[in-house]
Amino acid sequence: MVQKNKQPPSAAKPQAAKAAAPAEPKRRGRPRAYEPDVALGRALELFRRDGFAATSLDDLSAATGMNRPSLYGAFGDKRALYIKSYQRYRDEARAAMIEIFRAEAPLRDRLARIYAIALDIYLSGASGPRGCFTVMTAASEAVSDPDIRAMVLEGLTEMDKAFSTCFRLAKERGELPEGADPIALAQLASATIHTIAIRARAHVPRKELEAIVQGAIDVMCGPK
Amino acid sequence: MVQKNKQPPSAAKPQAAKAAAPAEPKRRGRPRAYEPDVALGRALELFRRDGFAATSLDDLSAATGMNRPSLYGAFGDKRALYIKSYQRYRDEARAAMIEIFRAEAPLRDRLARIYAIALDIYLSGASGPRGCFTVMTAASEAVSDPDIRAMVLEGLTEMDKAFSTCFRLAKERGELPEGADPIALAQLASATIHTIAIRARAHVPRKELEAIVQGAIDVMCGPK
Repeated sequence: MVQKNKQPPSAAKPQAAKAAAPAEPKRRGRPRAYEPDVALGRALELFRRDGFAATSLDDLSAATGMNRPSLYGAFGDKRALYIKSYQRYRDEARAAMIEIFRAEAPLRDRLARIYAIALDIYLSGASGPRGCFTVMTAASEAVSDPDIRAMVLEGLTEMDKAFSTCFRLAKERGELPEGADPIALAQLASATIHTIAIRARAHVPRKELEAIVQGAIDVMCGPK
Repeated sequence: MVQKNKQPPSAAKPQAAKAAAPAEPKRRGRPRAYEPDVALGRALELFRRDGFAATSLDDLSAATGMNRPSLYGAFGDKRALYIKSYQRYRDEARAAMIEIFRAEAPLRDRLARIYAIALDIYLSGASGPRGCFTVMTAASEAVSDPDIRAMVLEGLTEMDKAFSTCFRLAKERGELPEGADPIALAQLASATIHTIAIRARAHVPRKELEAIVQGAIDVMCGPK
């Protein structure tokens, strides 16, 4: 059977395990052989690349340098670790974008900046473009898992709302025509986020993704 | 460990296995205990719901009523069966939409019809909305598998081209403003396909998805 989405043995995992191995200096409380924050980052990396089902506890152990009891003790079961990883992904993406959503810059500049950050996130990854956690793995889990579904819906709604605030503000400033519908525009702006996440995962080059973004901005903002 | 995306034992799989079980009348050549076309449809159903990694050979055996040697003999390994399933999904989706893309109806009507067919496809599924094979499972495999990536890219390009033909024709007929860019509009139309596929998988109700589609059509086609 073909084992897919697995890296060759020489790639990230052994390196990650090695990096976590050296004993740390003693701290308050019980000594720990791992750093939970670093471990969570490595779990996120795996889940984001391979999804929920294809990531085994052995993979997570190797990547985090934590054995199964330690993983359970620190994070709970695989699903709990997946949810914590997704939460962290969301927090990081939100932190990267929130200032731009709040900024006073003209609409076109704000949109261009938001998509540039999204492309930075989607095209990163040592073993290929990782795309978006929501689009690539969480939306698949959402169909059967109510907690993950709630997180996905919250993420989608949050993005729609942030964009619609952008468009409403721009309309008030006269940057958009009278008839512009901030909610419809916001949903198209989110759709553009989704399409570049999917295309990134299929190795569409950044230049082409930027052209798609520019075309979308031109349609959404109207003639200059 | 939580086993996700699995149906309870009472659901589709045993039923599917039972349906394939009755002996068929003798045909030319060697007798077969299964119908390859039916088996492929059941494999597609499983892959579409659970993705590549979460679907085991045992799952595929149970759903198709074929043991492992028969599966290998008929389709090759799991990856080959996945690729054949994806090809079939694409063929079916193309067949459902091709007439509408070719039709002479006004742009708004054609777009509305295309999205209605897409929603029919994405919202179907006995155990929850299945979304789009390309978006939900193939795009994840595309990052590491060149053959699946080529199919995903071909699918994305085919959709962009079909939409851009639509918009170019509409522009020639005077249904769009002078400055309309058929390629940018086509990519937004594809983005709208992608966003409804993702949202469908997160159980967003059809009414809300239809409102997103209507908003997108209004932006893409301009004021009536």
